[in-house]
Amino acid sequence: VDTWLVDGQFAETIPITDRGFVYGDGIFETIAFRRGKPRFLELHLERLAEGCARLAIRMPAEQRLRAELRMAAADHAHGTAKLIVTRGSGPRGYAPPTAPEPRRVVAFFPSDAATSAGPAAVRICRTVLSINPALAGLKTLGRLDHVLARAEWRDPDIAEGLMRDPAGRVVCGTMSNVFAVRHGRLVTPELSGCGIRGVMRRVVIGQARQLGMEVSETQLSLQDIRQAEELFLTNALIGIWPVASCDGQPYALGPFTTALREALVAIGVDECRP
Amino acid sequence: VDTWLVDGQFAETIPITDRGFVYGDGIFETIAFRRGKPRFLELHLERLAEGCARLAIRMPAEQRLRAELRMAAADHAHGTAKLIVTRGSGPRGYAPPTAPEPRRVVAFFPSDAATSAGPAAVRICRTVLSINPALAGLKTLGRLDHVLARAEWRDPDIAEGLMRDPAGRVVCGTMSNVFAVRHGRLVTPELSGCGIRGVMRRVVIGQARQLGMEVSETQLSLQDIRQAEELFLTNALIGIWPVASCDGQPYALGPFTTALREALVAIGVDECRP
Repeated sequence: VDTWLVDGQFAETIPITDRGFVYGDGIFETIAFRRGKPRFLELHLERLAEGCARLAIRMPAEQRLRAELRMAAADHAHGTAKLIVTRGSGPRGYAPPTAPEPRRVVAFFPSDAATSAGPAAVRICRTVLSINPALAGLKTLGRLDHVLARAEWRDPDIAEGLMRDPAGRVVCGTMSNVFAVRHGRLVTPELSGCGIRGVMRRVVIGQARQLGMEVSETQLSLQDIRQAEELFLTNALIGIWPVASCDGQPYALGPFTTALREALVAIGVDECRP
Repeated sequence: VDTWLVDGQFAETIPITDRGFVYGDGIFETIAFRRGKPRFLELHLERLAEGCARLAIRMPAEQRLRAELRMAAADHAHGTAKLIVTRGSGPRGYAPPTAPEPRRVVAFFPSDAATSAGPAAVRICRTVLSINPALAGLKTLGRLDHVLARAEWRDPDIAEGLMRDPAGRVVCGTMSNVFAVRHGRLVTPELSGCGIRGVMRRVVIGQARQLGMEVSETQLSLQDIRQAEELFLTNALIGIWPVASCDGQPYALGPFTTALREALVAIGVDECRP
């Protein structure tokens, strides 16, 4: 059963004055919990701290978050953890309170051991991402663009949808980052205007460089996607997710994807086992 | 003391699984409550219904919202009411539940009788608005751009900040819409990409047309603002708020502003009494 902790206490509710609820004034992390441990926790905490700094929310003590994560996970071996930090409660109005008390929410959703995600059929979404350099890269609590994009289809055979910015550039999936191989090089969308800087995206860029691959962050058009030699998605809970087809156009499982999946298995991303 | 109702029950918390909290998956209205009545309630309900339709959230029965508003306001004569509608609770993941049960939150914040807001000193904010045609015009729960803009200053002599879109066009205030008089005509930013379509903005456009003024919704540059003959803000709780200065540049209280304020007083916006 799912477990939620609010400021260290088991809870099923949060105060209605929480600015995370009334204004989306907070950020979160989604973390794979495998064999009794939160995977890439250091990277998640680093991104959370960076987000808090950019939003001028006081970052909770890491030791507290670690302890509460253990408490929420209890004796489960596998699951998904969520860390939410909000600016806390305050009076009505956008202005942050003068002495806000940030609120910590730690959730744990138990699951079975990780299984490999098969190649995904994906689609192109009509709903575009919100552009805002001040929020770009962050996983803020305001995710309505992702919600509307994900609501575009119910067909269970479609695993994910790719989202574009208002100018038509492909930026990410509704719950994933995207990588393509073009002209023999690995590319992924740059995220200066929108999109979320995923932890698995960062891990994959690092692994690619260790394997001697050239990786660049750049703007990707729909045509770049259509003409890609390989296409895959990344996500903290899945690792690398090969794209089998996009709006019906097939993609082959190529050497970059295979080599990177092997590299991820070697650092504990079991979902990438073939 | 502030009163909150969740699905018709007095409450101080909401379920932590509410998608309004975890994803900003909902919208709200802020309503002036004057002399025992919610002002322009029909217009607020109309905008709420339009927002629900655009987000594919089932609009709660209006009779329920009206009854809960009366219940929350109790015997108060004046205050601010807030109506929030979220997609309700659901399991983890952006995909809306197949049979969501929307949640209603009605809040009431008592206040003294409305007093006239004096001419405002305003500033230009650095934080820009998020662009997304799918969300433009709506008052969604994801308001972090407004929060960051409002957090840019603490000087109590600055009453409001003007926000631009990423292309530099002036769109609105952090909690208001903006109107300017340019070359003898009334103009207000068009809101196809971002910004909130305020109820008072709509009322003012209607009143201006009744007074025989030409009003156009258009793109406004910072230069248009600097060269405006008159500049004012609109907000449901304030009516028309003349701008006395913007980043130090003074504006005179001109004939358009004065005539529109008189017209608003005549339809019950007491805050516009001179």
